[in-house]
Amino acid sequence: MCYTVIMNNFDFKNPTQIIFGKDSEKRTGVLAAEYGAKKVLLHYGGGSIKKTGLYDRVTASLKAAGLEVFELAGVKPNPRLSLVREGVSLCREHSIDLILAVGGGSVIDSAKAIGIGAVYEGDVWDFYTGKAEPQGSLKVATILTIPAAGSESSNGSVITNEDGGLKRPCGSDFIYPVFSICNPELAFTLPVSQIANGTADIFAHMHERYFTNVKQVDLTDRLIEAGMRNIIHHAPRLLDNPEDYDTWAEVMWTGTIAHNNLLDTGRVGDWGSHDIEHELSGMFDIAHGAGLAIIIPAWMKYVYKHDVELFAQFAERVFFVERDYVNPWKTALEGIYRLEQHFKRMGMAIRLSEVGITDDSFDEMAEKATAGDSAALGNFVKLDKTAIIKIFKLAE
Amino acid sequence: MCYTVIMNNFDFKNPTQIIFGKDSEKRTGVLAAEYGAKKVLLHYGGGSIKKTGLYDRVTASLKAAGLEVFELAGVKPNPRLSLVREGVSLCREHSIDLILAVGGGSVIDSAKAIGIGAVYEGDVWDFYTGKAEPQGSLKVATILTIPAAGSESSNGSVITNEDGGLKRPCGSDFIYPVFSICNPELAFTLPVSQIANGTADIFAHMHERYFTNVKQVDLTDRLIEAGMRNIIHHAPRLLDNPEDYDTWAEVMWTGTIAHNNLLDTGRVGDWGSHDIEHELSGMFDIAHGAGLAIIIPAWMKYVYKHDVELFAQFAERVFFVERDYVNPWKTALEGIYRLEQHFKRMGMAIRLSEVGITDDSFDEMAEKATAGDSAALGNFVKLDKTAIIKIFKLAE
Repeated sequence: MCYTVIMNNFDFKNPTQIIFGKDSEKRTGVLAAEYGAKKVLLHYGGGSIKKTGLYDRVTASLKAAGLEVFELAGVKPNPRLSLVREGVSLCREHSIDLILAVGGGSVIDSAKAIGIGAVYEGDVWDFYTGKAEPQGSLKVATILTIPAAGSESSNGSVITNEDGGLKRPCGSDFIYPVFSICNPELAFTLPVSQIANGTADIFAHMHERYFTNVKQVDLTDRLIEAGMRNIIHHAPRLLDNPEDYDTWAEVMWTGTIAHNNLLDTGRVGDWGSHDIEHELSGMFDIAHGAGLAIIIPAWMKYVYKHDVELFAQFAERVFFVERDYVNPWKTALEGIYRLEQHFKRMGMAIRLSEVGITDDSFDEMAEKATAGDSAALGNFVKLDKTAIIKIFKLAE
Repeated sequence: MCYTVIMNNFDFKNPTQIIFGKDSEKRTGVLAAEYGAKKVLLHYGGGSIKKTGLYDRVTASLKAAGLEVFELAGVKPNPRLSLVREGVSLCREHSIDLILAVGGGSVIDSAKAIGIGAVYEGDVWDFYTGKAEPQGSLKVATILTIPAAGSESSNGSVITNEDGGLKRPCGSDFIYPVFSICNPELAFTLPVSQIANGTADIFAHMHERYFTNVKQVDLTDRLIEAGMRNIIHHAPRLLDNPEDYDTWAEVMWTGTIAHNNLLDTGRVGDWGSHDIEHELSGMFDIAHGAGLAIIIPAWMKYVYKHDVELFAQFAERVFFVERDYVNPWKTALEGIYRLEQHFKRMGMAIRLSEVGITDDSFDEMAEKATAGDSAALGNFVKLDKTAIIKIFKLAE
């Protein structure tokens, strides 16, 4: 095994202002004005925010603060490049100075893409292929309705190019929202499938940071374990009581902390499972969280021998597995089993066959995942095309 | 018992950029210039930063970046108002635009006071008596040499007015440093007493946030417990090996997280122990951490019956005390006992008599603590003068 012995040097600053709690969306207009906005592009998905009345409350708040409001609806899960390009045009045409994303990770990621695209002369997709790096952005703010992606306080955005089914991430410090409004009540209307997918995504953001070759990062180990335990404790409670404020508050705040870059200070995350999953949802349009619940356990089974002790630590500290001192690898495997059971309890598929993906596609997905710059995915264990196919087999 | 049932609404944003790791002080000049500085006031304590070579490295870095450097040395533990006033005059005289604190909490708190004082027409002490609130500040940056106070990323400052021995805090979002350089190597030369006092202070910042009447704050409970376990695990290791980078990195980063306001999102901290301790160090000039190691266990013994279950949770999750299901209060008391044993292991006094403070002073200290606005201290349990004297008795 190859370990970096000490905590890595790091820079950490997260500039997003979080406004958390009941009725916090009523402050939208005042906040946007404080951040200097005059013309706001309201960006959202479909009709759900109109049904719930959120749309009315937000536009009323913006108008009460004297702001001019433009609109771009129609964001879909795995947000499309074509809509982003439309948003870029709109922002230029109307000299928009703040994009307000009202929705979940897809809407926020779309807004972020519009923000960096609007101040760039070339095509916004350049940022997602690595051809260019963002040099600035229009201000982006969010009203979070789906705790999951952590995009409300992250420096990342993931966009899907319909032309080829390519789902690609872009990271830049210009991408942090200026403020994010997080009211747990806005999640009360989510269907069970989105509860399951969202909480799986939150877990996954901690998982990707946890499995690292950097040793002597005890504080972040413990903080991540705290977050993992919290999401595993609270997620199932939402199935029984999807309108429980307390539980949603736990899930929503954990979702933000899971992905605001605090939890990977000093360490190098893996992100192999995310990259593999992007091929799944790029090709089959299944939800990101649903794909992760299938890929993560398979990834774990493929890599755990690389660091049995870290997997044993995960099992012991997150799932309170009793350590097998003679056979620590059994402790490690028990942790993976319990994670699968958690996803099953959430009503999720944990095998590709359950969602109709068969081995016909394994080669193509693995090929795409390792195309271009990324001949090998992940950091904890480097995964080439052969390794990725093995992971698909373990998930079959 | 009177509980707030749900997580409180909150705003959270911490704007301080943390630059963490080996050699990070070499970036000082470039960073200060990036933040727009031209004239820097270097603020520090005594000769220790000259002996270690840090002074030379920092001034070289500032000058290499083309900055003009002024100096104000002489900060003492429990930083004095008189030196702050001197700093305010210096800043005005030379049109300083960034104050660089090189040291621990005292130096940083002094720099923060100078920062808010320099842009205020009245006397800076007004901010510490509550007579006025800061409306701005000169930029303050820090190079941390003593992990303890958490002031490198906090919005607070504590100053002592020699005239009357009054030690008073001021909190304001204008007080956050713009950047803080945290290199664990800079702590290698600290004497054992400062290791003990500093790690006690770090624990105390988490303690003050942990004991709250707000329920349904599981995530922050768990994050605080992670931080507490980490400091209790690592602090004793420094006694055997005060030049262990990994251990100092854990302690230093925990010290920052303990006090950057993340850990009290959604909850109301107590701060009674801090307020009581300020009278101790105000009157007897003992170190803040040393006073806390005496006051906190006594405070716990006085208040634990207010919420036995929270104290049992503390004992079980932080010290892995086996729960007594029949007598949970015994679990609670065992947690307090283990905390005392931790401080003793760190070589600290845990009774007032050990540091020569006798019951002659109890009345006067309790009187001062409850003078003026604060007729009752703390939030978890409100403490009047009589209660504070009882806590002193428990600490006798």
